[in-house]
Amino acid sequence: MSTAEKWMQAALEMAQDAFEDGEVPVGAVVVQNGKIVSLGRNRREKTKNAILHAEIDAIQHACETLGGWRLWNCELYVTLEPCPMCAGAIMNAHIPKVVFGAYDFKNGSCGTITNLFELPYGFKPECTGGIMEEECAVLLKKFFKKLR
Amino acid sequence: MSTAEKWMQAALEMAQDAFEDGEVPVGAVVVQNGKIVSLGRNRREKTKNAILHAEIDAIQHACETLGGWRLWNCELYVTLEPCPMCAGAIMNAHIPKVVFGAYDFKNGSCGTITNLFELPYGFKPECTGGIMEEECAVLLKKFFKKLR
Repeated sequence: MSTAEKWMQAALEMAQDAFEDGEVPVGAVVVQNGKIVSLGRNRREKTKNAILHAEIDAIQHACETLGGWRLWNCELYVTLEPCPMCAGAIMNAHIPKVVFGAYDFKNGSCGTITNLFELPYGFKPECTGGIMEEECAVLLKKFFKKLR
Repeated sequence: MSTAEKWMQAALEMAQDAFEDGEVPVGAVVVQNGKIVSLGRNRREKTKNAILHAEIDAIQHACETLGGWRLWNCELYVTLEPCPMCAGAIMNAHIPKVVFGAYDFKNGSCGTITNLFELPYGFKPECTGGIMEEECAVLLKKFFKKLR
């Protein structure tokens, strides 16, 4: 298992928590210097808060833990390609490296619908998609199948 | 004063609060059926939270007040063109109408750097820019001049 897969596995466990809680199963972790500094997962339904995607949850906790809003030397691992809000939050937090699992054909904003990281904003995170894609996608499919 | 200007004036008062608190002066309000349901302003520095732009602050309070994450019949007024995170949050909250004041030449994502509301996402808010543009921009200029 590669280092990226190790962190994605941790994000997948958060996605599994979301699944068990009736939320769209997406999980995220923020890593700094080889250590997890925050865990996040989708909490939109339970909190009735439009903002609380996994990445936002993880970024807010990382800001709390590290005591500042600039997450310069951090990496974010998330099981699903970030939506525009989350890709924007990653840029606003100055996170230089993003790794995601499954591609999001409806809202993906790191290459699918658009690639916000390639537009002329002030900050351009490095981004890799498709890490443990199958495992991340299977959990989402299972959730939406159960919902129908 | 038009109705849009009345709501923008309320957003400007929130921006003024942010200014006095040492934050980049951006304010926002969410309006439903001709009434303000939430007020928001930039709180990034004081809370040390990368997420807390004015729109996010206003959207979170509106979700709390209205008891759900879908702000279907709401309008958002904000003194500065939304960044990608905030434009994405507006789509995630299903807010159908957005009005902004000043244009943001660095991060504006409702026409300036890109127009997220015209891309093939599932939700396309109607958007108008430049309402009380001068007043909104002057406050920002005053802030950045003071900072130097």
